[in-house]
Amino acid sequence: MSRHIHIYAFDMNCVGHINHGMWRHPRDTSSRYNTMEYWADLARTAERGKLDGIFLADIIGVYDVYKGDPSTAIASGAQTPVNDPLLIVPIMAYVTKHLGFGVTVNTTYEPPYLLARRLSTLDHLTNGRIGWNIVTGYLDSAACGMGLSAQPDHDARYDVADEYMDVLYRLWEESWEDGAVRVDRMAGVYADPSKVRPIRHEGQHYRLDAIHLSEPSPQRTPVLYQAGSSTRGRQFAARHAECAFIGASSPEAAASIVADIRAKAVAAGRAARSVKLFSGLSVVVGRTEKEAYDKFEDYRRYADIEGALAHYSSSIGIDLSRLDPDEPITYRKTNANNSALEAITTRSADSAWTVRRIIDQMVLGSRQKPVVGTPEQIVEVMRRWVEIGDIDGFNLPRTVAPESLRDFVDLVVPVLQEQGLFKHDYARGSLREKLFETDSPHIDAAHPAARFRRPA
Amino acid sequence: MSRHIHIYAFDMNCVGHINHGMWRHPRDTSSRYNTMEYWADLARTAERGKLDGIFLADIIGVYDVYKGDPSTAIASGAQTPVNDPLLIVPIMAYVTKHLGFGVTVNTTYEPPYLLARRLSTLDHLTNGRIGWNIVTGYLDSAACGMGLSAQPDHDARYDVADEYMDVLYRLWEESWEDGAVRVDRMAGVYADPSKVRPIRHEGQHYRLDAIHLSEPSPQRTPVLYQAGSSTRGRQFAARHAECAFIGASSPEAAASIVADIRAKAVAAGRAARSVKLFSGLSVVVGRTEKEAYDKFEDYRRYADIEGALAHYSSSIGIDLSRLDPDEPITYRKTNANNSALEAITTRSADSAWTVRRIIDQMVLGSRQKPVVGTPEQIVEVMRRWVEIGDIDGFNLPRTVAPESLRDFVDLVVPVLQEQGLFKHDYARGSLREKLFETDSPHIDAAHPAARFRRPA
Repeated sequence: MSRHIHIYAFDMNCVGHINHGMWRHPRDTSSRYNTMEYWADLARTAERGKLDGIFLADIIGVYDVYKGDPSTAIASGAQTPVNDPLLIVPIMAYVTKHLGFGVTVNTTYEPPYLLARRLSTLDHLTNGRIGWNIVTGYLDSAACGMGLSAQPDHDARYDVADEYMDVLYRLWEESWEDGAVRVDRMAGVYADPSKVRPIRHEGQHYRLDAIHLSEPSPQRTPVLYQAGSSTRGRQFAARHAECAFIGASSPEAAASIVADIRAKAVAAGRAARSVKLFSGLSVVVGRTEKEAYDKFEDYRRYADIEGALAHYSSSIGIDLSRLDPDEPITYRKTNANNSALEAITTRSADSAWTVRRIIDQMVLGSRQKPVVGTPEQIVEVMRRWVEIGDIDGFNLPRTVAPESLRDFVDLVVPVLQEQGLFKHDYARGSLREKLFETDSPHIDAAHPAARFRRPA
Repeated sequence: MSRHIHIYAFDMNCVGHINHGMWRHPRDTSSRYNTMEYWADLARTAERGKLDGIFLADIIGVYDVYKGDPSTAIASGAQTPVNDPLLIVPIMAYVTKHLGFGVTVNTTYEPPYLLARRLSTLDHLTNGRIGWNIVTGYLDSAACGMGLSAQPDHDARYDVADEYMDVLYRLWEESWEDGAVRVDRMAGVYADPSKVRPIRHEGQHYRLDAIHLSEPSPQRTPVLYQAGSSTRGRQFAARHAECAFIGASSPEAAASIVADIRAKAVAAGRAARSVKLFSGLSVVVGRTEKEAYDKFEDYRRYADIEGALAHYSSSIGIDLSRLDPDEPITYRKTNANNSALEAITTRSADSAWTVRRIIDQMVLGSRQKPVVGTPEQIVEVMRRWVEIGDIDGFNLPRTVAPESLRDFVDLVVPVLQEQGLFKHDYARGSLREKLFETDSPHIDAAHPAARFRRPA
């Protein structure tokens, strides 16, 4: 295999991200998430391990489906409280040189004109290391924070997001021509006004008549990530995403999702490999199998099943506290995250899916089953995902922080490198150039953003 | 005089902030505003000089009143392009320990639920060093970027902002009780849900039913700054501001504005001295008078009058390019920044106010007349502002960056310290504790935010 695997540390500006309860472990420091040094340390570790970047999740709202209120999420720290993810990026960028950043921001609530500037600002400051994970949100509690009584319908949110993306593409690609910024001290011309154009957009959901407030950043459009794996979500990914994060329970399950997204990308006029696919992987590694399993047994004592159920109930829009443990879970149309629902109902066809079975899976406080073993065993699992699932890379959630990332960097990365599966050093250039081995920081010509590009 | 003067470096995430054209000076580095090191260096210099903080302006929109389009502003780099101010704060905070930050964010365009979290996040990361400069915006071009055809009326914007503030106060002060966050690893309780309350607000302009997403930050409500000096703006300042920035042309003119704001604060139930008043001061300092004036003559060769006129035309909502240079400027009701208009028309009563006179004032590319002299002479001017104008401190715009701040720190600060007008070292605690010499990071009990506070 010639392809290098791409690896992101997967994190969130909160105490409990994926593996709930791990903050209670005596060595865990994630309750220091609200300090600068916590994030600086994470970034330094990731760059020491030559990781591609840090992928930052976010959520607006709270998990209040379980038992009908947010009490469980608050008590267990399950993504509540949660701070803004954009504001930790400058700290992590300042202490690193190559590390990339994929940051989650919600199109439903952020005004496009202001978000365009925020992401351009970060792309400037990081010298082209910024990616944006496009989400449309799925929580009614977020809508209530924003003055609405409920979320717009799932598919409608993606329709609105399609238009949102066009507005942003135009601000990033069209408003400032290449060469517009002259910084000519003698002539007294900072930028040439004839090369700066207002974007006039009159759409169904957005109206705009303005120039982009930021001059062109190294990448212009940041690297685009997307994580929805519902049918509509995949369509959106196939059109917009350069990196898509899928939630699959096995390499075999991943393969069909990956093939579908690649096929949809081709149908949208893009190359099949122009979308890189990522899967989540929780890793518990030890120098020996015994050390790994001892660590796993130690960690699992801190798993918070209640927190995990609170999180998962909101993911699927079903209050799991109200079901009999052995009652088969059936599909119910909700406004929530359809990808999770589709996954659960697909699986229900094979065997009865029950709360008891879900809880049994939650060994580290989430439905993401950890991979436990020696570095060689972990690498073997990663290789299977790549070969069978056609996956390009992984997002690694923390278990016990920061030791789970340190372990990965110290133990797994060298083995990946020995086996030719992972880079020994960073390539030069922007995040996009590093990820796609291109020599331009700008988005691929076949991407819909590129149609707004103006000749220099 | 026993009061210490408070001093902020006044800056903006752009090339040309106040003194337009200075970026063209051979030693000026402000065209590097889009790099992290530029801001880190600024912050280190400010903290070396024991400055209270960095005050960051911002604008949404472009200056397109002058000649009817933004060409002049774009060419001269007059606050165009302009990047997001919040995202440079974490960098500056990371390289400093005591420096405070006053950051401008617009209430008209930022959703309150998300802004509350952004400011809380910054207050967490900086360990309580965050202030917010509340602005309501005044540019029609900003409205066009946000999908509106024109700004709401000036006074109406403040009415909406009053309600906005109440929503934020409730999120910051009321949602999470003191002691709600337990971080109890043994009990497995991150926070006590019984001490976290959703804020239910049904107002004329905003609706909300949600808990604050962030746990309480050191200051909860950030230090509140405000800069409007129109009549309605002063009312707003008297109610909400802990620090107000006034635009006065002399200590005598300042005195009446300051007295008015203090009286209005008292009328609102607050102590007269609970609002600190700041004035802008552009300083050109040399070791000798000759060195100072040589420097000033050198700088002024780079003043960009066109850029300054573009900026000022938008400030007052009058296209100064269309007036005869000697034609008296008369008041015209516009939607723009009424404080500037009130200032100009007040002055017009004394003597005819003309474009020619305005240009004559713009010696360094702005209407803010610089103070030029030795450190002792600068300190004497500052003392006059404090004694006659009853001013508490100054915002220092850059002229040639970074040397104007370095000069101030190296030459003026020691003289201020010698004369007992400026601190020799930082006090301990949050920005609020440092500014008000209190021993609580939380907002004063007489402030309207405090009425939402819950007993511990």
